[in-house]
Amino acid sequence: MHQSNTSNRARLLISCPDQPGIVASVSKYLHENKANIVQSDQYSTDPEGGMFFMRIEFDLPSFEETYYTILQQFPAVAEQFDMSWRLEQERKTKKMAIFVSKEDHCLLELLWKWRSGELEVDIPVVISNHPDLKDIVESYGITFFHIPVTKETKPDAEQKAKEVLDSYGVDFIVLARYMQILSSDFVQAFRHKVINIHHSFLPAFIGANPYKKAFERGVKLIGATAHYITDDLDEGPIIEQEILRVNHRYSAEDLKIAGRNVEKIALARAVDWHINDKILVHENKTLVFN
Amino acid sequence: MHQSNTSNRARLLISCPDQPGIVASVSKYLHENKANIVQSDQYSTDPEGGMFFMRIEFDLPSFEETYYTILQQFPAVAEQFDMSWRLEQERKTKKMAIFVSKEDHCLLELLWKWRSGELEVDIPVVISNHPDLKDIVESYGITFFHIPVTKETKPDAEQKAKEVLDSYGVDFIVLARYMQILSSDFVQAFRHKVINIHHSFLPAFIGANPYKKAFERGVKLIGATAHYITDDLDEGPIIEQEILRVNHRYSAEDLKIAGRNVEKIALARAVDWHINDKILVHENKTLVFN
Amino acid sequence: MHQSNTSNRARLLISCPDQPGIVASVSKYLHENKANIVQSDQYSTDPEGGMFFMRIEFDLPSFEETYYTILQQFPAVAEQFDMSWRLEQERKTKKMAIFVSKEDHCLLELLWKWRSGELEVDIPVVISNHPDLKDIVESYGITFFHIPVTKETKPDAEQKAKEVLDSYGVDFIVLARYMQILSSDFVQAFRHKVINIHHSFLPAFIGANPYKKAFERGVKLIGATAHYITDDLDEGPIIEQEILRVNHRYSAEDLKIAGRNVEKIALARAVDWHINDKILVHENKTLVFN
Amino acid sequence: MHQSNTSNRARLLISCPDQPGIVASVSKYLHENKANIVQSDQYSTDPEGGMFFMRIEFDLPSFEETYYTILQQFPAVAEQFDMSWRLEQERKTKKMAIFVSKEDHCLLELLWKWRSGELEVDIPVVISNHPDLKDIVESYGITFFHIPVTKETKPDAEQKAKEVLDSYGVDFIVLARYMQILSSDFVQAFRHKVINIHHSFLPAFIGANPYKKAFERGVKLIGATAHYITDDLDEGPIIEQEILRVNHRYSAEDLKIAGRNVEKIALARAVDWHINDKILVHENKTLVFN
Repeated sequence: MHQSNTSNRARLLISCPDQPGIVASVSKYLHENKANIVQSDQYSTDPEGGMFFMRIEFDLPSFEETYYTILQQFPAVAEQFDMSWRLEQERKTKKMAIFVSKEDHCLLELLWKWRSGELEVDIPVVISNHPDLKDIVESYGITFFHIPVTKETKPDAEQKAKEVLDSYGVDFIVLARYMQILSSDFVQAFRHKVINIHHSFLPAFIGANPYKKAFERGVKLIGATAHYITDDLDEGPIIEQEILRVNHRYSAEDLKIAGRNVEKIALARAVDWHINDKILVHENKTLVFN
Repeated sequence: MHQSNTSNRARLLISCPDQPGIVASVSKYLHENKANIVQSDQYSTDPEGGMFFMRIEFDLPSFEETYYTILQQFPAVAEQFDMSWRLEQERKTKKMAIFVSKEDHCLLELLWKWRSGELEVDIPVVISNHPDLKDIVESYGITFFHIPVTKETKPDAEQKAKEVLDSYGVDFIVLARYMQILSSDFVQAFRHKVINIHHSFLPAFIGANPYKKAFERGVKLIGATAHYITDDLDEGPIIEQEILRVNHRYSAEDLKIAGRNVEKIALARAVDWHINDKILVHENKTLVFN
Repeated sequence: MHQSNTSNRARLLISCPDQPGIVASVSKYLHENKANIVQSDQYSTDPEGGMFFMRIEFDLPSFEETYYTILQQFPAVAEQFDMSWRLEQERKTKKMAIFVSKEDHCLLELLWKWRSGELEVDIPVVISNHPDLKDIVESYGITFFHIPVTKETKPDAEQKAKEVLDSYGVDFIVLARYMQILSSDFVQAFRHKVINIHHSFLPAFIGANPYKKAFERGVKLIGATAHYITDDLDEGPIIEQEILRVNHRYSAEDLKIAGRNVEKIALARAVDWHINDKILVHENKTLVFN
Repeated sequence: MHQSNTSNRARLLISCPDQPGIVASVSKYLHENKANIVQSDQYSTDPEGGMFFMRIEFDLPSFEETYYTILQQFPAVAEQFDMSWRLEQERKTKKMAIFVSKEDHCLLELLWKWRSGELEVDIPVVISNHPDLKDIVESYGITFFHIPVTKETKPDAEQKAKEVLDSYGVDFIVLARYMQILSSDFVQAFRHKVINIHHSFLPAFIGANPYKKAFERGVKLIGATAHYITDDLDEGPIIEQEILRVNHRYSAEDLKIAGRNVEKIALARAVDWHINDKILVHENKTLVFN
């Protein structure tokens, strides 16, 4: 279900050392290229020697001409300010792969929001180390790949997954309760392009069985954390967190059920922001311009 | 306790019909005047024929020279785009008057946040139609004026209040549970400069006794709404709303107590945003750039 | 997918004028009948002349013998205290019908929670005035009835719906964004057995198009309200409310999307509580023992 | 400001191994002693071999006679079920001591809620290791003790504090941002009677400087945790937790300010529940019957 999108909207995301004149230069450049700025957000950690971040959303009335001109010419502006930058076009719908194991709540939340048009993304493929969710996925018209993973076959399995992702031109990956740890190589290949949902309010209850730990600790709120995957397990940049109030009547099982509901909310928001290029990563933190 | 503030920070707030080139022109102008943009937010209701809003925060290294230059010259830029605009300086701490009746929870929240430095504002005067809170106010070193109000004396009372406000150079007013309805004349004189806290989740329970009504309706959440006062009672632009979960065990009195806690939270946030020029009013709505 | 439930758990719900000795009499009676009380909640509006409410959950080790004994004998206890009461058994899974129109978000939330075991209920039938959701419903193995409704055919349509509900032995109905107003006769026939989700934070924005109204009013929080249907449209006893923070960037359409997410959360909670007999209705309010 | 309280209300709190007949026996006993049960909550971790907890609130029309009768006779009932229990009377207002250092936000929240009648408690004394808050405390008519603490003088300081607490008949202690670690001896002497507010969402950010750690981790929600003090620092039974949403614009200082606001909310709720005997502690968890 690829949406043929004729939007003329583009987004420019910038990170650079702060100094005077950045906004003026960028907005002057865009104006000269007929861009009509719709929204712009910026943030400076410190005007004196800090880092500057900007996200500009603009319409290009003659998209075909100007978009590629900007793509070619903007490096000159960027160089002047030592910028990291990327230019994104709304008409190029991103391709998202979902990795799952056996639990379906996060998967189904994403599929429902995708089908309802809430998430403007293409989902060409779902990959799982278990066959359980095949029928559900295929009922949405999405290709399902069962790639089993054992300790021994992990490198092969990841290689196979990469091939699938390549063949579908996947832009980013969502781990929707995928219970495998990805290798460093895999993570490096998709830097800041793998979103995970951790079933706890990080940094509390890092690691396995967070709901059991939360139950034993007697917490009064449980949470979930959506974050980008890095080499440090559960330590990647946090994108979104959500919580739910609980009480002593919740068994460990009840906490798990309650947890599912916050997991899917936090994950869906993070995915939405990623799709709309609202997230900038700096060191181990995110800036979310929403 | 006037803070002698040597900040070089200024804020420019703009509303105008949207059209290409606004950001470029404004940022170019500011850059030419040595402004170092720290933060900027903008929003367009519709790039084609909609309204455009912008808030820019910037540092002026040679404040004394450039601030007044901008103040004098910016009208030329503004005229070009048919802008409503205002320029604010952080070093000029705003003067806030608080109007109260007998209840002290909102008053004390503001006073505490003021004394702790959380609200960067001057509070030269508190005005009340009752004498009850005199001692508390004076214990904070703030002048207290008791101006009784009856139906007959209302015009005189408002006149007297205006004189007090003038003599202290008050910039804006907070109605911290002031139970009187201000006249249209008074409201006009302080347009978008009177913040009220309404003890309900507007537009539910408009008017008097909202907690009693909430009790009778059996709501599961109660709320409070901070808004600018306009001629339409309880209908002015909403700045902030907050809620609290309640249940069947709450009596009407319990709801009132719970309500106090959301009232003070919502009001304090609204005041903070007003102080920091984060609020733009358009028609009957606010844009809060926070 | 009827669950063959062998639970020995029962629930007794009681409302009566408060007076001394109620708890003692009831718990003594249950103990004599070998009931093992697992949980009990009670509430009195006023020990002097108020109303008393109780919900007791208990296990009956010899269920077959004792359950029906209690059912037959308890009226004697109840009469003594002028009680309204009902006895429910966990092993008798309730039968829920869902009424929908075209929007699927509330329906799918309920179906997913049902399939995942989160909602312990049977869903024999979905009824709709539109054919749109037929395939989705049937893919869950649930019978779908398309019963069109026009102003003229409404009595016939309701009659037909009643026949369907009867033939499936339906215990209660959920209006999951069913956009029709039910007749007084229908509502009376299912008193406190029809749960509706209203797409606003009642009593704000009663009636149609609440998100448009919320947009125009510029609210900072939007909400949804699950309530039992009564003859007074949107005025029935509130079961649950939920809210979500929004801001000036939300278009009327964005508010609608955000609204869907609070609607499904509030509705699913209300349904869960109804299934587990956690709700008592008194006059126009609910007591939720959760 | 001791309130002369003539309430006839008492509260019985019970923990014991679960078994059939507990509720029946207790409610029968209370009924025979003319108690009129107003509210009762109970919870069983597992009807088969689990623990049973109950909180009963009741009025005793002839309080003077029956209260002491129950106090003397109830041990016979308790013994039968191997109960831990305590009987509390609402007319005996609890005496609370507050320990502070230099920060006043939690202290002032408690004082304000006390003066407004929201917290029905006596506050005879505030103890601090710094003199800074003396004037504020005394302005509320409360005695302030400055007891400095160094590593060397800690045993003496705690001894002195104990003497003060004894002389005022203090029932429980609130650490309102008291930055000292209490000795094991002191903690044992006030088991489950010292409430602390930890400035983070435990178990995240255990230990010092949680806001700095939260800033570095880039969390999207910050929290605070009210808990009983035990020998394990920051590991005592959690009473209440609260959170606030933050974003990348919050500096470490902003997080600290935001944190204050959640700290005072969580602490005030925990204190309110403790005052009203709504908390039962079992192993390292609390049951809050609210």
